[in-house]
Amino acid sequence: MHRLKNDIGNIYFIRGVIYMKILLVGATGTIGQIVYEELKADAEIIQASRHAPDYPVDITSQDSIKQLFNQVGPLDGIICTVGAAHFGPLEEMTPEQNLIAVHSKQLGQINMVLLGQKYLRDHGSITLTTGILMDDPLKTAASAAMANGAVSAFVKSAAIEIPRGIRINHVSPSMLEKSKEKHGKLFQGYEPVSSTRIGLAYRKSVFGAQTGQAYKVY
Amino acid sequence: MHRLKNDIGNIYFIRGVIYMKILLVGATGTIGQIVYEELKADAEIIQASRHAPDYPVDITSQDSIKQLFNQVGPLDGIICTVGAAHFGPLEEMTPEQNLIAVHSKQLGQINMVLLGQKYLRDHGSITLTTGILMDDPLKTAASAAMANGAVSAFVKSAAIEIPRGIRINHVSPSMLEKSKEKHGKLFQGYEPVSSTRIGLAYRKSVFGAQTGQAYKVY
Repeated sequence: MHRLKNDIGNIYFIRGVIYMKILLVGATGTIGQIVYEELKADAEIIQASRHAPDYPVDITSQDSIKQLFNQVGPLDGIICTVGAAHFGPLEEMTPEQNLIAVHSKQLGQINMVLLGQKYLRDHGSITLTTGILMDDPLKTAASAAMANGAVSAFVKSAAIEIPRGIRINHVSPSMLEKSKEKHGKLFQGYEPVSSTRIGLAYRKSVFGAQTGQAYKVY
Repeated sequence: MHRLKNDIGNIYFIRGVIYMKILLVGATGTIGQIVYEELKADAEIIQASRHAPDYPVDITSQDSIKQLFNQVGPLDGIICTVGAAHFGPLEEMTPEQNLIAVHSKQLGQINMVLLGQKYLRDHGSITLTTGILMDDPLKTAASAAMANGAVSAFVKSAAIEIPRGIRINHVSPSMLEKSKEKHGKLFQGYEPVSSTRIGLAYRKSVFGAQTGQAYKVY
């Protein structure tokens, strides 16, 4: 997709369609791929991920995040669909194991906001990813729940003060239909959700006008 | 208070009253003092805090937490009423400033659970402290909200798998009447809550039978 030179304010148009440049971190993951398919016709998507050839990023490293933002320049949207967490019995969980989720799913995403906000154009959007485990817990998943709860509360609070009309939301997916074979044994009784519904939640966050929302796809 | 030697199961009685040995971390703080006054007649309260002469603890240090638990031995309850956080505009907040809440209010409290669970007797309780900012946000308070949200989701999840009948809850206070003079300018329009109500929430968590609860004192 080529950028038109004549832009109106911060909104760019190509053949009458709003032009947006969106950074998608976690583009190769299950959710990242869904988001890419959902949005690719309507925006320029910069596909970043740990092993991406053009836009590699390690969200647990501030330097790596900064380097990515410097590389991609001004953005209309930031979407983050990544974040690791340790799964294991609470009784055996060590503080070090718990730090995996803290540094990845929690601070990795939150640092994308803290470090990335200045790279967003006015009225840009940020969309982070949490998950159903914060609301509907599972054994072995307390660390993931913690990280989700942290991001959720941070988003709600950040939304009331992030400047220049920037919006910030998060999508909280349940188990995906796509992941049923892989995770179904853990997520007993959870209703799998379609990729279509997941994609729509990210679309609403990017193209809608709401802020501070938790788009729960349950 | 002297301990009777003849105990029945894990419940101890002194003059017909249930005997409990409870560790209170943050005993010198505003909330810690309220909790101490509320519970002191009904339990042996070990008063720990950063500068306590007998039971000093720095909750940001795992070694310090471990040392405290080794010092106090088997417990019927753990209450944590401490946790620091950086307050400042989101636009200027650095990842390092955000780490204050991560290491103190969030992981300090969660590590009390991870490291302390084995020191609890069967059917013991854990009570952590969050706060209204996760639900009802204020400018400059995104980092505190994050830590509260993390602890809240962790508690909900931990409650379904923590072993031996141990219960875990958190109390989420609004601005205290006691703190109105100090914090009233920041908490515009928040209804101040009485020390009595705060104390009762901790009492319910310790002496009640519920688990995984958020006792919201709003």
